[in-house]
Amino acid sequence: MTGVRAAVLAAYHQPLEIREFPAPEPGLGEALVRVRMAGICGTDVHLWKGELPVPLPVILGHETAGVIESLGDGLTVDWRGDPLRPGDRVTWASSIACGECFHCRVTRQPTRCFTRKAYGISYCCDESPHLRGGYAERILLRRGTSIFKLPDSLPDLAVVGAGCALATAIHGTQHAPVRWGESVVIQGSGPVGQAALAVARQSGAGRIIMIGGPEHRLAISREFGADVTIPVEGTTVEQRRQRVMEETRYGADAVVECVGHPDAVNEGIELCRDGGRFLVLGQYANAGNISFNPHLITRKQLHIQGSWGFEPRHVDAALRMLELGPWRERFSAQVTHRYPLEQAHEALMTVKDWRSGKAVIEP
Amino acid sequence: MTGVRAAVLAAYHQPLEIREFPAPEPGLGEALVRVRMAGICGTDVHLWKGELPVPLPVILGHETAGVIESLGDGLTVDWRGDPLRPGDRVTWASSIACGECFHCRVTRQPTRCFTRKAYGISYCCDESPHLRGGYAERILLRRGTSIFKLPDSLPDLAVVGAGCALATAIHGTQHAPVRWGESVVIQGSGPVGQAALAVARQSGAGRIIMIGGPEHRLAISREFGADVTIPVEGTTVEQRRQRVMEETRYGADAVVECVGHPDAVNEGIELCRDGGRFLVLGQYANAGNISFNPHLITRKQLHIQGSWGFEPRHVDAALRMLELGPWRERFSAQVTHRYPLEQAHEALMTVKDWRSGKAVIEP
Amino acid sequence: MTGVRAAVLAAYHQPLEIREFPAPEPGLGEALVRVRMAGICGTDVHLWKGELPVPLPVILGHETAGVIESLGDGLTVDWRGDPLRPGDRVTWASSIACGECFHCRVTRQPTRCFTRKAYGISYCCDESPHLRGGYAERILLRRGTSIFKLPDSLPDLAVVGAGCALATAIHGTQHAPVRWGESVVIQGSGPVGQAALAVARQSGAGRIIMIGGPEHRLAISREFGADVTIPVEGTTVEQRRQRVMEETRYGADAVVECVGHPDAVNEGIELCRDGGRFLVLGQYANAGNISFNPHLITRKQLHIQGSWGFEPRHVDAALRMLELGPWRERFSAQVTHRYPLEQAHEALMTVKDWRSGKAVIEP
Amino acid sequence: MTGVRAAVLAAYHQPLEIREFPAPEPGLGEALVRVRMAGICGTDVHLWKGELPVPLPVILGHETAGVIESLGDGLTVDWRGDPLRPGDRVTWASSIACGECFHCRVTRQPTRCFTRKAYGISYCCDESPHLRGGYAERILLRRGTSIFKLPDSLPDLAVVGAGCALATAIHGTQHAPVRWGESVVIQGSGPVGQAALAVARQSGAGRIIMIGGPEHRLAISREFGADVTIPVEGTTVEQRRQRVMEETRYGADAVVECVGHPDAVNEGIELCRDGGRFLVLGQYANAGNISFNPHLITRKQLHIQGSWGFEPRHVDAALRMLELGPWRERFSAQVTHRYPLEQAHEALMTVKDWRSGKAVIEP
Repeated sequence: MTGVRAAVLAAYHQPLEIREFPAPEPGLGEALVRVRMAGICGTDVHLWKGELPVPLPVILGHETAGVIESLGDGLTVDWRGDPLRPGDRVTWASSIACGECFHCRVTRQPTRCFTRKAYGISYCCDESPHLRGGYAERILLRRGTSIFKLPDSLPDLAVVGAGCALATAIHGTQHAPVRWGESVVIQGSGPVGQAALAVARQSGAGRIIMIGGPEHRLAISREFGADVTIPVEGTTVEQRRQRVMEETRYGADAVVECVGHPDAVNEGIELCRDGGRFLVLGQYANAGNISFNPHLITRKQLHIQGSWGFEPRHVDAALRMLELGPWRERFSAQVTHRYPLEQAHEALMTVKDWRSGKAVIEP
Repeated sequence: MTGVRAAVLAAYHQPLEIREFPAPEPGLGEALVRVRMAGICGTDVHLWKGELPVPLPVILGHETAGVIESLGDGLTVDWRGDPLRPGDRVTWASSIACGECFHCRVTRQPTRCFTRKAYGISYCCDESPHLRGGYAERILLRRGTSIFKLPDSLPDLAVVGAGCALATAIHGTQHAPVRWGESVVIQGSGPVGQAALAVARQSGAGRIIMIGGPEHRLAISREFGADVTIPVEGTTVEQRRQRVMEETRYGADAVVECVGHPDAVNEGIELCRDGGRFLVLGQYANAGNISFNPHLITRKQLHIQGSWGFEPRHVDAALRMLELGPWRERFSAQVTHRYPLEQAHEALMTVKDWRSGKAVIEP
Repeated sequence: MTGVRAAVLAAYHQPLEIREFPAPEPGLGEALVRVRMAGICGTDVHLWKGELPVPLPVILGHETAGVIESLGDGLTVDWRGDPLRPGDRVTWASSIACGECFHCRVTRQPTRCFTRKAYGISYCCDESPHLRGGYAERILLRRGTSIFKLPDSLPDLAVVGAGCALATAIHGTQHAPVRWGESVVIQGSGPVGQAALAVARQSGAGRIIMIGGPEHRLAISREFGADVTIPVEGTTVEQRRQRVMEETRYGADAVVECVGHPDAVNEGIELCRDGGRFLVLGQYANAGNISFNPHLITRKQLHIQGSWGFEPRHVDAALRMLELGPWRERFSAQVTHRYPLEQAHEALMTVKDWRSGKAVIEP
Repeated sequence: MTGVRAAVLAAYHQPLEIREFPAPEPGLGEALVRVRMAGICGTDVHLWKGELPVPLPVILGHETAGVIESLGDGLTVDWRGDPLRPGDRVTWASSIACGECFHCRVTRQPTRCFTRKAYGISYCCDESPHLRGGYAERILLRRGTSIFKLPDSLPDLAVVGAGCALATAIHGTQHAPVRWGESVVIQGSGPVGQAALAVARQSGAGRIIMIGGPEHRLAISREFGADVTIPVEGTTVEQRRQRVMEETRYGADAVVECVGHPDAVNEGIELCRDGGRFLVLGQYANAGNISFNPHLITRKQLHIQGSWGFEPRHVDAALRMLELGPWRERFSAQVTHRYPLEQAHEALMTVKDWRSGKAVIEP
């Protein structure tokens, strides 16, 4: 192997560039992985637009599957304790928490670790060893990365099709679980919304209502088990509220916001029954303020819950979930667009323009 | 006994009027109670201003202690199952839930009962049997009222001094408990705030910070066990935030909002540490919208919890708490102003003008 | 209508007798119901053997569906608030709690009500109005009974096929919930075990292992969604333990005991992983002591949970669950034997001898 | 410094021997600590009797305070992230979990780590670097030890007086919390029982009843806040049960077993009210079987909870608790006997014979 090619975000709003980097050797506890498939996450679009602070230039890509090419000293087992060898197909948690700070230790919230870094987001690729993102032929995993060996039964397509969305939804619903039989509204039919829908369905929810769009995504939602889908386009907030009330009488037991637009929070609160749970999962980026009436929190006795990212154990749970019921096939089928590395920018634009279920790069 | 005198709110913003009503006989399951002490709640001021919809004219007063004068057929025991007889000193839950609706049965949230009615709030005194409020010589308790016999060890002053605020705080902290050792911020040093402070202290909280005013109320807070008191007057939001960070390093484990002004919600969220709990207890009245950033909910992984009123079991718990530690004396000492029935209006104005710790009427 | 015939347990271990009782008129809040189908519960066998103290003679039958024949004054809606009229098909919670005692009010455990009475168990049929059990042409429901109108979509067969077992399993798993993805062992393939299996499956459990027998019941378990069935006959405790470890590696996340024999408790504890949950649901009758090592509780950090009977809200939940997924059909199919009232004793013997999935009487 | 002296358990039931070991240099991440005070735990007596499997010879001592003498490379901060320097006074968690096994990662129960090792218990002192127990002039702390710098406000006496008992009680009550106002029975007035009493009191418990002995320990319990103390000596199980019922009417809301003798489990279950919590904290050693009736679990709807050892975060919490209220003074006062290293065996015998509140060694 000579050079390693990668798609680099060098300037916001500009096409990704293909650059070549020196091939590294894995050091103590590191792993060099040949990338087989890298997912394009909606967050990547935010990064491309410069909406989140990242060090440029950066190799994007934080939901990835690949094959171990070589292992540094001391790395012999995966997160689950299973032996790890070159040739093993793997995925990994995108972030590494320090394990030692206040949130890692005392509040046990490693997603709020003060120094957490994420592949494909936090590493400037000008700095050695450069290869810290998934849109590349190779990625060098740091010591301490939570690596998961993939069983033959789990194709790359399912793993990357589920992507970081499923782990995010699992983490969120751990804070605000859906109980069997409950009525649930999911706001947003992007990957996080579909994943939250899957978790609600796996949790035995009763009636599940998806509010989203466009229609090809609502069709996926029905495949994922939504009982009712309500398009955002062509409906008013009040019409959607009435539709939810028809289905739930007094409002849903649980509402999961996976939209990102802050207005969804006001709409979601109205869709909860008194005493219901409202999981605010989509406000990952700071999209500004809304006009909000806190009286509703007190009067409706609401439980509103935030959740940020996910931990390695949620990747573990996501992989286990993919082996239950129909999820492997459903998440695989979410991937509608596949691109070679050279077309990384086109892949990104497909997601930006909401044309795909899910788009992936196969370097 | 001939006529029964009561202080009546006949028109908003007008002085309460003393009127006389016919003395009733208690019917099946009812109790006629001679009022010994009636508390003036902040809600009564809201009612007087016309900020909550009530049927006029109305006899105010929903936190009351009295003596059983006569009992209707079938009423032989109190809520706890202890025998009830004329001459017994009692208090009672201010509201009656239907016990049969969706919230009473399925969600087990009787405070959200569709037809709940409250003494001193929901009953027009033009309608027989007229006497449904505490600012009166007598009150006729409906069948199904949750009555609590008071032990000799619990003086009226402690019971009315704790008032509905303590049961409200107990209900709220049941939804979002304070655990021993935690740092807690209480926003608001009115009766609900002091009661929340008491519950936090009884729950073994570590550092408790009270943000409120005026100074005579902060002095009460220190008596109630606040480690730090921060006056609202003369400080900015940012100064208060810095002060809380000095005390808690990363923000408080739990914040309890007992202010009522919607701006307090934005301030409270900033005072929570990541993953903290924010109990929104004070937004009882609809005081309008604020500009609010929902990104904070997701990023800080907050648990925001609303709570509305209280149930009879929280009155039970409040009365039990008054017999623990120093609470009987502390809540009794909260009562700084005592008035005869004739001066009911002056009593109300004392509360309106924030001049009292707590004001009561002794008819 | 002249006399009403019923199958009466007059003496333990003796055949049930068909007796005739005067037809009653429903009084205030009462309902006269024509029985369409009455389930034979395993508890009825215990009653017949005299293993639980009941007043003889008694009309057995506590899981029943029927049609409202006439309604007493004041009874106009069912538990859910839906209008109730003669001709409506209904079922009801078998027990009535007082609503006023320590457990009804303070601990909110009406199943531990000090004066709870159950149809088909607690009422001597020598006493007027006699008709308080389901093995009869008519039953007179007391004021305060929790009645549920059955939708056309829910046949009697599904309702009685689920019987009290499903509400019992729902109540139990509310105390010790199964979370999606978890490995679960169910001990016992009688009606409670099958119901617990159904609830675990509806809750999204991962691997479910049923330990029970005979084979025709294990076949039902596989229909209900068990991944693995282990026969009790022909296997040792150690063989079963090894089989569970093969499936779960370190033991199951949750074990639900639905056997009744006290030895099952020792076996179940061994099948839990460290930190697992053990729901003891089947020790309804006092079947004596076992030799037990409490060191396991401490060392394994176990959560052991008991649960007794069920409340009306669990009947509500059971009826809702029957309308989800495949449960209506599966529980209907559990009914393998149907008898006329005259053969009530034969029906009872079928259950006693473990010959049926579920047996019912159709008077 | 030349040789380092330590008290060694070389043979069960034999006097501890003073031996001398070479003084080590701390390697990467290690710390050499000069021991100031080492507590004698009841577990040490079990070890001395050979009731738990340990590698002999062993230097006992797992609850220790000392001064950092030298630090290996890479060790610069304590568990809380505060800077660590020679001369700092410290304590540490007695166990190190691997951080990588099923229980460390998936079930998040590091106390059930498959390879956990404890100072003063798991290390043979024949093997280099020998000094892995507290009954010694020096101890060499392994890389990865959770070290806590002690503030000046926390004397050794309080820290060792609280010992491992307080962290154990905190861990246990995290699994089965005591809520404010609840009635609590503590079984056992040894260090774990007193610590559980302290946690219950700090949690705001209502009535606390201690069952234990001898009288000098019950006196400590009253100092710690017990409302009622019941001696085991001279009372029958039934007398004690009646006494608890007098105090609690229907049984205690929570019972904490800290006795160790398995019979206490049967007694504790009888002392719980229906629906109560029973924390089995004392069955650390396998002390054999009891005759037990599991029907009680089902009928009383009990929550029985086990808890094993503690994690570093519980040491953190214990140290914080010592700075709340009166606990520093009370736990310090528990230490009634102090010995030099040469009298380590006498110190151990004092505990064996139940003569002390708490005994410590000051090398």
